[in-house]
Amino acid sequence: MNDVILNSLSYGMYAIGVKDGEKKSACIANTVIQVANTPNIIAVSLNHDNYSCRCIQRNGLFTVSVLSEDTSGAVIGALGFSSGRDTDKLKNVRHRVLAEGIPVIKENTCCWFLCRVLTSSETATHTVFLAEVIAGSEKAVGKPMTYEYYHRVIKGRAPKNAPTYREEKQTAQEQGGESWICTVCGYVYSDPFVPFEELPDDWVCPICGAPKSAFKRQQ
Amino acid sequence: MNDVILNSLSYGMYAIGVKDGEKKSACIANTVIQVANTPNIIAVSLNHDNYSCRCIQRNGLFTVSVLSEDTSGAVIGALGFSSGRDTDKLKNVRHRVLAEGIPVIKENTCCWFLCRVLTSSETATHTVFLAEVIAGSEKAVGKPMTYEYYHRVIKGRAPKNAPTYREEKQTAQEQGGESWICTVCGYVYSDPFVPFEELPDDWVCPICGAPKSAFKRQQ
Repeated sequence: MNDVILNSLSYGMYAIGVKDGEKKSACIANTVIQVANTPNIIAVSLNHDNYSCRCIQRNGLFTVSVLSEDTSGAVIGALGFSSGRDTDKLKNVRHRVLAEGIPVIKENTCCWFLCRVLTSSETATHTVFLAEVIAGSEKAVGKPMTYEYYHRVIKGRAPKNAPTYREEKQTAQEQGGESWICTVCGYVYSDPFVPFEELPDDWVCPICGAPKSAFKRQQ
Repeated sequence: MNDVILNSLSYGMYAIGVKDGEKKSACIANTVIQVANTPNIIAVSLNHDNYSCRCIQRNGLFTVSVLSEDTSGAVIGALGFSSGRDTDKLKNVRHRVLAEGIPVIKENTCCWFLCRVLTSSETATHTVFLAEVIAGSEKAVGKPMTYEYYHRVIKGRAPKNAPTYREEKQTAQEQGGESWICTVCGYVYSDPFVPFEELPDDWVCPICGAPKSAFKRQQ
């Protein structure tokens, strides 16, 4: 088989909020599904190397904020392409902290809910948490962002820790234009009307916020 | 919280193929995600009452066929709204049987893959299987059907065993037209140009194949 067929699976886009003592953090996941409804139980898969995964293993609580098509790609960049271990990923991201000490993201998100872990299953690289939904917002607004939308419209990529990550061969624009790839998150810049060199010096990657110098030309 | 916010989670649409001795069957699921990639592991949630769930518990093998937007709603009806315990659900559904004795669906599906169960987690109503992808098609074709597309375009409903099932209050068409609901699968007929009474006597529900007599007028 060709692994690429697994790209046919459909997902949404979510911010997973966690706490570590007094510290709050969040990461991005696409692997959230409801697995039962009496009570409401969801599953989410996170890489062992993710700081958020360790936080959930320690205190058994997390939030899910459902991203909408109006959520900026920069929010995904801020939460999805760096580790919360050493940085405050929420510094420039609007959020609210619940009474339980866990943040929910307020960047044009559709809704949020709070989950308590019931059990977890281990794979070699990822932990799959099953968790009961114990609280949440009263309504959902906006159109949920799908993973397909993230790839097609926002032109985002999967970070290396994502369960759906696959090494992709980047190819230069076939229609004559050059393309430049962000070495941090894999975002490809290829606007045929504005050459990369003409972007202002303080331009940053719209996905992960990396500076212009983090981009390299693709062959 | 309002349970309806969980409708903001995004899913695809899949046929899960199973065997029970010599017998082959299949059901419909929306809850399939990839949870790890070295090796490729997926998760799927099935209701304990589903015949397919019992088949997988017994022999640990199943297939996933990814439905596309070109897959007929009638395929979902045939596989999703009756039990394979007593009927041959595959009778009118094009499929191929793998060497392992498990069917894959060939009704304009995008691709298929074969899975071997590694472990499972129980909830009160559903089993969540984690399974390794051990074989699959060489390519994917067509546009994967999302659960949102199934609801919006095919106007399908969740059967009572689905993890995402929620009781819905059916309301009459607000724009003056009548609507009729299939008592088997919940499909709502409300074509403003063709009154329900004028449909031919041999018309059947496009989702589950129930006869015209299985419909009742909505208030």
